[in-house]
Amino acid sequence: MTTADLSALLNREQADAELFDLLRIPSVSADPTRRAEMGQAAEFLRAKLSGLGFSARVDATAGHPVVYAEHLKAPGKPTVLIYGHYDVQPEAPLEEWVTPPFEPTVRNGRIYARGSTDDKGQAYAHVKGAELLLAQGELPVNVKFLLEGEEEIGSPNLEAYLREHEAELKADVIVISDGSRFAPEIPTITYGVRGLSYVEIHVQGANRDLHSGSYGGAAPNPINALAEIIAKLKDDQGRVTIPGFYDGIDELTEEERGMWSSLPHSDDEFAASIGVPALPGEAGYSTLERLWGRPTLDVNGIWGGYQGEGSKTVIAAKAGAKVSMRLVPGQDPERITQLITDYVPTIAPAGVTAKVVPHHGGRPFKFDLNSPYNQAANRALKRVYGREAVFARTGGSIPIVAAFADILRAPVLFVDMGLNEDAPHSPNESFAVQDYHNGILTSAYLLQELGQ
Amino acid sequence: MTTADLSALLNREQADAELFDLLRIPSVSADPTRRAEMGQAAEFLRAKLSGLGFSARVDATAGHPVVYAEHLKAPGKPTVLIYGHYDVQPEAPLEEWVTPPFEPTVRNGRIYARGSTDDKGQAYAHVKGAELLLAQGELPVNVKFLLEGEEEIGSPNLEAYLREHEAELKADVIVISDGSRFAPEIPTITYGVRGLSYVEIHVQGANRDLHSGSYGGAAPNPINALAEIIAKLKDDQGRVTIPGFYDGIDELTEEERGMWSSLPHSDDEFAASIGVPALPGEAGYSTLERLWGRPTLDVNGIWGGYQGEGSKTVIAAKAGAKVSMRLVPGQDPERITQLITDYVPTIAPAGVTAKVVPHHGGRPFKFDLNSPYNQAANRALKRVYGREAVFARTGGSIPIVAAFADILRAPVLFVDMGLNEDAPHSPNESFAVQDYHNGILTSAYLLQELGQ
Repeated sequence: MTTADLSALLNREQADAELFDLLRIPSVSADPTRRAEMGQAAEFLRAKLSGLGFSARVDATAGHPVVYAEHLKAPGKPTVLIYGHYDVQPEAPLEEWVTPPFEPTVRNGRIYARGSTDDKGQAYAHVKGAELLLAQGELPVNVKFLLEGEEEIGSPNLEAYLREHEAELKADVIVISDGSRFAPEIPTITYGVRGLSYVEIHVQGANRDLHSGSYGGAAPNPINALAEIIAKLKDDQGRVTIPGFYDGIDELTEEERGMWSSLPHSDDEFAASIGVPALPGEAGYSTLERLWGRPTLDVNGIWGGYQGEGSKTVIAAKAGAKVSMRLVPGQDPERITQLITDYVPTIAPAGVTAKVVPHHGGRPFKFDLNSPYNQAANRALKRVYGREAVFARTGGSIPIVAAFADILRAPVLFVDMGLNEDAPHSPNESFAVQDYHNGILTSAYLLQELGQ
Repeated sequence: MTTADLSALLNREQADAELFDLLRIPSVSADPTRRAEMGQAAEFLRAKLSGLGFSARVDATAGHPVVYAEHLKAPGKPTVLIYGHYDVQPEAPLEEWVTPPFEPTVRNGRIYARGSTDDKGQAYAHVKGAELLLAQGELPVNVKFLLEGEEEIGSPNLEAYLREHEAELKADVIVISDGSRFAPEIPTITYGVRGLSYVEIHVQGANRDLHSGSYGGAAPNPINALAEIIAKLKDDQGRVTIPGFYDGIDELTEEERGMWSSLPHSDDEFAASIGVPALPGEAGYSTLERLWGRPTLDVNGIWGGYQGEGSKTVIAAKAGAKVSMRLVPGQDPERITQLITDYVPTIAPAGVTAKVVPHHGGRPFKFDLNSPYNQAANRALKRVYGREAVFARTGGSIPIVAAFADILRAPVLFVDMGLNEDAPHSPNESFAVQDYHNGILTSAYLLQELGQ
């Protein structure tokens, strides 16, 4: 079957109309008043998949239900588990939407609706991809759909679901389309995610707030001390100073650095897009390398003393900060958390005590660039876009990857269909009509290529 | 007249009873429901001074009234303006008072009541001191009383009052008793106050909050940057690094350093009293030198990013801090504010912009240790305590000193009667009965000595 074949066979009008029906359901998982709509969206997907010949059901969880469907009629062929989610972000602030969030509207070639790209549009593209293939005969691989309803609230019940259905969910590869390609014309395969260690630093000075006149010059100041500690956590080359922090890191390969350096990226444009005059970071690495392949240390919040209007001449008793470190393959979140926990007290200035309180962590992942799954995805994308895919990583951390790796023990293949400009989580979220249609074709070709 | 004379002539029971009547009036200037009580306290003092032969009146202001009284029957003798205040701090939290704040009670030789030491007790001691002298004849100097009702809310109308009554208030020296002696047995003359420059530092990163996964490693982090800026404002010797900060400072004299080093001060006890393991500060100076005679830089408040429960992986768009610098004679608050305003942007790390927003300032003051006024006070205190006074400075800033210096152009003589343990501004404020009585004698002897 050639590219032309499937593209010609896709009924785009019909595909759009079905997605619009799904987008009209306000399935906001964070909103307790919308439990009925959550069930409605799940049933919509179940019914659709059932109609395609999948064995499909809606499974209750302690939270919102999971849609599970399977089509296992390709003996001897790989099994592909497609993960997606049918819940969406809250639509607030409503007044910023040009058209209502749950009335999908096409403007300038884009479908505007909450969930259009994240993740109803991308998940439904896989449903339509399977349909496209089924219209021609059987599926070339065994296919399982796992469409959850709690991704936007942190997937609190997914891990339990995976454990409970471990045997049933068994797959050779897990396909996720829930993100952005590098640029409009560029098909992208994401093969790595960063991990995370999130902690708080607490600094204690005197046993009470002190008057800065009566005590200033002799009493330790925990805010000044906290600033000193934070400043010491990085050197003047932007490197984290925690002893052992970089130990064991999988350094970027020449292949990766070469690949990324050839991408159409402009530091000036990137800086301008966020309104800053420079992009500081670890010396010796490009911006993309720092975003995707190097660890970070960022203070996410800080507090202490008087924050109100006007002035108060107080030396606070305590101060604190939230600090997150993005981690890369080779770094273990628990070990890194221990390292900073041990290190911070040693760099606290005299007079104060500083301690680290761990919050949570997430493991970094990197999948084999040259795995047959990545190669199959690359071939599929080339059939759609006419060019090789870019192999990128993402700077973010995707906690479900660890759950898939630990429980289902299968590699994850990220085939993103969206773009950053889709503005997921923001008002006026959208998904390019062309990207939706390309996504459907990508899904169909990917199943074909995985069947080779 | 000898020490024994006046001490024997003081009717202590009567003095206590009168002060208790004044303390029973809940003259809380911050409480708008107590305007009547404010007027009542002012009238109490006016009537008392009038009864002593002073020409006394209650002057309305835009806020609470001023009690002004004068007794000018010593031609050719100096004129002494005694400043005090009859307003008190709010009594909250009421439940922490052992006995009610406006029912003065003596326990273990201490008068417990709101305002007992701050400042009704100390101000009224001067009234009683004048009475004691008047019982023997005329006052040895010309005496003016200026008793305001807004000290605890920042004296918002005092400057206007001083300007309006500049000629009338003219004096050779201004006596203030509104603070603490160094230690119970030690008479203390405070001859210097620190000044203040209070600013905010604002740091701006990107034009919006960013996701720390997607942007961490490339986007500038204004909280990290603020911490770096703050850390750079002092060196590892505890010295402020702002260029020119120490220029022109009146260095501590050998006389002052010698005087203070002989005071009964223990760093260990001081550290223990505020619960800290060390007293960091500028290298090369003792704790008392750092508190009284050296400038400081303390962050009084800091904020930025996410301060709530749990975690949020955000790179904030902005961060800020409130910073105060206590200043010593030779430092001009406006110049210091300009120096930090110029300096901070130059030490901001790449990618962020930092600016300083001035708040307010206050001038440092130091009065001549060997002035005739200080010598007279020392002689008076020696007659009460049987030992020389300690010449101390205070680390705090007393804004009214500048108003007195600028408008009345007279030196200020601080003759403190209280102790730190009096706990002004706290529940269970108290004033030792002995300190009250000594204060009355001090006041009387001071007027005598100033008349020599």
